[in-house]
Amino acid sequence: MPTANAAPAANAAAGTAPVSGAAPAPAPAPTPLRTVDAYWRAANYLSVGQIYLRDALRPAHPLTPDHIKPRLLGHWGTSPGLTFVHAHLNRLIREHALDLITVLGPGHGGPAALACSWLDGTYTDHYPDVPRDAEGMARLFAAFSAPGGVPSHVAANVPGSIHEGGELGYSLAHAFGAAFDNPDLVVACVVGDGEAETGPLEGSWKSVRFLNPATDGAVLPILHLNGYKIANPTVLDRIPREHLDALLTAHGYDPRWVVGDDPHQLHRQMAETLDGALATIRSIQDAARTPVPAGGSTHPRPAWPVIVLRTPKGWTGPHAVDGVQVEDTWRSHQVPLNGVRENGDHLRQLAEWLDSYRPGELFDAAGRPTAEVLACVPDGEHRIGANRHANGGLLTRSLELPPTGAYAVPVDRPGETLHEPTRVLGTWLRDVIKLDLGGGAGTGAGRHAFRLFGPDETASNHLDAVFEVTDRTWTLRTLPGDDHLAPEGRVMEVLSEHLCQGWLEGYLLTGRHGLFSCYEAFIHIIDSMLNQHVKWLKTARALPWRAPVPSLNYLLTSHVWRQDHNGFSHQDPGFLDHVANKTADVVRLYLPPDANTLLAVADHCLRSRDQVNVIVAGKNPSPDWLSPAEAARHCERGLGIWEWAGTEDDLATDPDVVLAAAGDVPTLEVLAAAKLLREHVPGLRIRVVNVVDLMRLQPESEHPHGLSDAEFDAVFTTDKPVVFAFHGYASLIHRLAYRRHGHANLHVRGYKEQGSTTTPFDMLVRNDTDRFKLVCDVIDRVPGLATRAAAVRQLMTDARARHRAWIVEHGEDLPEIRDWTWS
Amino acid sequence: MPTANAAPAANAAAGTAPVSGAAPAPAPAPTPLRTVDAYWRAANYLSVGQIYLRDALRPAHPLTPDHIKPRLLGHWGTSPGLTFVHAHLNRLIREHALDLITVLGPGHGGPAALACSWLDGTYTDHYPDVPRDAEGMARLFAAFSAPGGVPSHVAANVPGSIHEGGELGYSLAHAFGAAFDNPDLVVACVVGDGEAETGPLEGSWKSVRFLNPATDGAVLPILHLNGYKIANPTVLDRIPREHLDALLTAHGYDPRWVVGDDPHQLHRQMAETLDGALATIRSIQDAARTPVPAGGSTHPRPAWPVIVLRTPKGWTGPHAVDGVQVEDTWRSHQVPLNGVRENGDHLRQLAEWLDSYRPGELFDAAGRPTAEVLACVPDGEHRIGANRHANGGLLTRSLELPPTGAYAVPVDRPGETLHEPTRVLGTWLRDVIKLDLGGGAGTGAGRHAFRLFGPDETASNHLDAVFEVTDRTWTLRTLPGDDHLAPEGRVMEVLSEHLCQGWLEGYLLTGRHGLFSCYEAFIHIIDSMLNQHVKWLKTARALPWRAPVPSLNYLLTSHVWRQDHNGFSHQDPGFLDHVANKTADVVRLYLPPDANTLLAVADHCLRSRDQVNVIVAGKNPSPDWLSPAEAARHCERGLGIWEWAGTEDDLATDPDVVLAAAGDVPTLEVLAAAKLLREHVPGLRIRVVNVVDLMRLQPESEHPHGLSDAEFDAVFTTDKPVVFAFHGYASLIHRLAYRRHGHANLHVRGYKEQGSTTTPFDMLVRNDTDRFKLVCDVIDRVPGLATRAAAVRQLMTDARARHRAWIVEHGEDLPEIRDWTWS
Repeated sequence: MPTANAAPAANAAAGTAPVSGAAPAPAPAPTPLRTVDAYWRAANYLSVGQIYLRDALRPAHPLTPDHIKPRLLGHWGTSPGLTFVHAHLNRLIREHALDLITVLGPGHGGPAALACSWLDGTYTDHYPDVPRDAEGMARLFAAFSAPGGVPSHVAANVPGSIHEGGELGYSLAHAFGAAFDNPDLVVACVVGDGEAETGPLEGSWKSVRFLNPATDGAVLPILHLNGYKIANPTVLDRIPREHLDALLTAHGYDPRWVVGDDPHQLHRQMAETLDGALATIRSIQDAARTPVPAGGSTHPRPAWPVIVLRTPKGWTGPHAVDGVQVEDTWRSHQVPLNGVRENGDHLRQLAEWLDSYRPGELFDAAGRPTAEVLACVPDGEHRIGANRHANGGLLTRSLELPPTGAYAVPVDRPGETLHEPTRVLGTWLRDVIKLDLGGGAGTGAGRHAFRLFGPDETASNHLDAVFEVTDRTWTLRTLPGDDHLAPEGRVMEVLSEHLCQGWLEGYLLTGRHGLFSCYEAFIHIIDSMLNQHVKWLKTARALPWRAPVPSLNYLLTSHVWRQDHNGFSHQDPGFLDHVANKTADVVRLYLPPDANTLLAVADHCLRSRDQVNVIVAGKNPSPDWLSPAEAARHCERGLGIWEWAGTEDDLATDPDVVLAAAGDVPTLEVLAAAKLLREHVPGLRIRVVNVVDLMRLQPESEHPHGLSDAEFDAVFTTDKPVVFAFHGYASLIHRLAYRRHGHANLHVRGYKEQGSTTTPFDMLVRNDTDRFKLVCDVIDRVPGLATRAAAVRQLMTDARARHRAWIVEHGEDLPEIRDWTWS
Repeated sequence: MPTANAAPAANAAAGTAPVSGAAPAPAPAPTPLRTVDAYWRAANYLSVGQIYLRDALRPAHPLTPDHIKPRLLGHWGTSPGLTFVHAHLNRLIREHALDLITVLGPGHGGPAALACSWLDGTYTDHYPDVPRDAEGMARLFAAFSAPGGVPSHVAANVPGSIHEGGELGYSLAHAFGAAFDNPDLVVACVVGDGEAETGPLEGSWKSVRFLNPATDGAVLPILHLNGYKIANPTVLDRIPREHLDALLTAHGYDPRWVVGDDPHQLHRQMAETLDGALATIRSIQDAARTPVPAGGSTHPRPAWPVIVLRTPKGWTGPHAVDGVQVEDTWRSHQVPLNGVRENGDHLRQLAEWLDSYRPGELFDAAGRPTAEVLACVPDGEHRIGANRHANGGLLTRSLELPPTGAYAVPVDRPGETLHEPTRVLGTWLRDVIKLDLGGGAGTGAGRHAFRLFGPDETASNHLDAVFEVTDRTWTLRTLPGDDHLAPEGRVMEVLSEHLCQGWLEGYLLTGRHGLFSCYEAFIHIIDSMLNQHVKWLKTARALPWRAPVPSLNYLLTSHVWRQDHNGFSHQDPGFLDHVANKTADVVRLYLPPDANTLLAVADHCLRSRDQVNVIVAGKNPSPDWLSPAEAARHCERGLGIWEWAGTEDDLATDPDVVLAAAGDVPTLEVLAAAKLLREHVPGLRIRVVNVVDLMRLQPESEHPHGLSDAEFDAVFTTDKPVVFAFHGYASLIHRLAYRRHGHANLHVRGYKEQGSTTTPFDMLVRNDTDRFKLVCDVIDRVPGLATRAAAVRQLMTDARARHRAWIVEHGEDLPEIRDWTWS
């Protein structure tokens, strides 16, 4: 490390002059860059310490193998870049009294994030057993990447973070999600050049096209080119610089480069560039927030600043090890010196490395950071680790939700009327948005804390009532014929499920509310993002200082059973299985069978916190089963017996068979099957059960919503056959009900990967989930019925064959099926 | 449609002159653009016919409501653009005798693809009941998007396609995958401006940085800006044109625009642009394929042509309907005229629309396309629908695989030696690549039909032996210190799981072989792509004319049980569940327990066809259990009793308990548990079973690999407790074994979402899958043992507590666990 740690001699001078001509007046005294360098060196020292040391070093105690951890873990390569950015953002916040949070794409740089949180005191605020002194430093070092300690990746345990540091690709989407509707917030987002290769990240740059400078905050991307991934160079570092400039310009940015490896030069460049970037952001925002005089032209399209920071990977670390260059190569990705316990040369190099930061200037005898180190750190809630936006639960306020009763459809008798459930929901969501915009009685300016997200499917999913009160978010040019586009629109549509998910996550984690509506088959696109969000929530829920945030709500529609048009390419109900694998505390699966239950479920979900709620509902006309009051009660119970659909007058007498359903289409088939059985098999005692909250099927020991065994047995019996028609793959029901007494009697029908372009009813037939098959299942399973009802069985089999022949000839379902009604 | 269908008057003239100055000599006579227009009009007519008509129209029969389908389905908006591209590509192929395939990103434009396939005769080749005459036309129309007919999206049933038209985002990745190692192939890839918004597509542009012009074919992207998605404008159409130019330039392309709505102008522009693009491609390839003279400079970095085609959405369709503009707006996305059966105006508009193509000039009295329509269509296998690359099984040749025996580790006694399974596999893969490159005895120039794919993890996954014979694919500049980068490298590393998957799919579907190695937790990134590939294979397997293609092989390593360093952020074994939901014929899940079984499984997978094989294997040192011969036998059986690990001398006597495992780490724990039980509970009859092929657990009725019940019962018994330690979520084992006789006795331990940064053994303890817990499970389940072995149970419980205390203090596992051996 030849020049890396030379004292930046000119910094004292630089510190007394304004770092940039753009500083706003009246400004606090400029922070000397000398102190920024001191902070940076301290953070680097602490990063190295976390990776290598089991204890804090005491002055004048030479480094020995005993100081070294038994296993060396952690990512050094990205850390000095992250600490550099932090040091400079501290100065920027302090000088401009900014409201600023960071999103660290290279979240594997845990040592850097932890070092900075410890330095700004926020780590100690939340973990008082890790004070800002030698004892605390020792604990910081010992806990890093150690069993029972803290992860090596940035996770929810790090104050000031809203971004899980596992899988790469989502930093920029999270940053924009945080910035929406936070007009005074700046989100500084470090994007690693490794992460920049992922599809989701490449697709995130365009988020700036959806940012409204008048009402949203700013995102300042800092593309950190350190040149290497694990073992490869990065694409963006090896393409011609003019290509990278063109790329960022094309996406709507104004790139500003900070390049080098000499800290003195880099500090000056970075400070000036940050000041300039902030000035540009302010000027864009000021222009957008100044009313355009009548007759004046509209605001020009802004080019938002982006910083390209080109510093060596493993900067300030060992330049070469065993004669091989390490600094500024992929070899510095993790632990640059691996043999420090056995190899004297390595140990000596580590000692020199630590000494190069001149710790004696950075920490006093008690291990406390010196005043110079802390001089650039902002105060109180301005500290990056203390910003309330990064602990969004602190800012969360419940949405003002309109009472669902006013939107519910009247149901005098079950199944007499048809409604499109999502269309009914759309009218309620319209007024959720209206109230959030201040449309309620006397609520004034509104909260602007709810958005609807979806990949160009809001209208397709029949939620278009929302466009009566708002538009789609759109800042680019518009043309005649465009439908509801405006910069201040509350509906975020972009043909990228990744962006919808990432934006929403960022929006929720900063304390706001949202709903993501998506075609069911394509929600698998964000399986992996869901994983990370659930991991975040699971970890955050265990941290008392993390206040609960609004839940992540999915509305999956255009679902598997109504893909008669799009066919096999649009069929997959497996997201339910994926979510069911996740931590029980966090996940909920809802399958409302009609419009009124959908309203009740949606209302519940928008009130909940720290959860992932998946709602599957139809957009096609389907029967209304429950009145508003019945729907509310049913959803509160999560499942229940529909007495009117079965033959039961006296619930104390066990039925001969239980017909159960979860999902709107399966519910219809189960009711049709019940009707057929009542008609054709008189005397058979039938119970009909509907499940709206799937987790009720799990034992209470496994899931907080789980029914007790006694409750479960009372509904499903312990010994009677249960024929269960399910929206998804049958195995999920078996999995949830596996430990129940009556499990051996449970026979589940569901989607089994059979489908094509066909009619709605034929989809059911192909997957053996149609009413006729369900009747056969009952006949086959109720003792003694196979013989008694053999003719009925044949009738059902014939009906299936007749249906098949009909659709081939007519291209649509049999009229008696199409027009079937319960009543 | 004001000008859209005016006869392009100048085309006759244009047709007699060369369409471009760049035509190579000796060239066939240039195809008159008049004929290209005729083909285009015919394809448009057929597209409209598929959407609206139940039958072919006969000349002089006026259109009546009876001609109209009962339900109008299909996507008109994108279709005229796709037919336009097809018409012009036909001309290009014909004039230049090209080997060209298409990838249609807007795969929902099924009508266009089907129309073109019918016109070039390839549809009839494969579906003789749909001849190229009026009868065939009627069947083409009737079958489109009809029950029992063909899907409205492009799927495997369309000749010439390798791209499922469901979920958007993967066209460009597929196109590049097809082009790799096919030096003479041109892949024309239509990217819709909707698809262009997805993250995976945005991340795919850079594929060109991995294309070696010397040895790979060319991809010609055609970015089709028709301006709209379902209900929104597209981002790329509304950003300034200079931004889009900059974006494509930045990604390494040379954009060429074709813009307008006047067919006459557009035909000329498109023809010239395509000729120019082809000339550029040839010149890039010629330069790269010409040896550089000694001392000469290397080839300059090429800028590959990309065509930006800006035509109206719904071009040539109704310009306005009911006074509202439809053409060139989002309203033309699906069916522009919706009321044709009831609304006389709509019906008249449809009749005019159909007539505007002047079908009398396009089809003879028998409904056959006229000579003019077919004049631009290439012959034989040059037809887009007949290109063998798009039916890759026709070109597939088995890999020459080195016998695994030479790479296997010797195993005299089980568990005496340790190896890193993936490192052993790496040596074999090295020689797979070597043979493929022609390194075998006397095989000459090599096939170049195998690549290894992974997101910068080949070395991290311990497969780095491959770098002894090849490099990573890299065409950008290199620096000293770079590790094995070369344009001709066979290892494709990019930090994008989407690209790895997309490239590999394209490579496989064109008849080559590959393996995708990935961290287990992050493979969920491509869950949705896997869905689409399985759908493709399921459909293709049912088509006799689709020859089987090499399987899609995953090696998942850095798996859930060895994330002690990275912690919770890197843990998720759920890909197995996701895959298990898919069509049984297609999917296979393998969990080889050691190095030799991994070799045997990999060898099997690389020989298989039309499947998705998921292999989960460790990269850490782990015991070798089976000799090469035993490993081969075990993998062939898929599961088996390890007599040496249990207490059984006589298999005819049932054991008291079965201890089963699937996965390397669970196998180790089961063997450790067996050893503990043998030591502490003498007399207990223990059977140890290892499962390598998970699908063996399913009944033979459910999966082709399923064991018969008799076989299953012989191994697992019907009445003895089975304690099963599993690599993934326990529910998967229950799901697979659900119908087995002994299922009620099956007790499964596996990953249950508990984890953090901790030691390897602690991961097992946290998830109740450690040896001590397994011993307790046995004691709790074998009748009578709870009392007899109460002390042993306590011993085990104490051991867990001792371990927990130890790791908190020492940061590593107890030495007796770390150094435990079987022997």
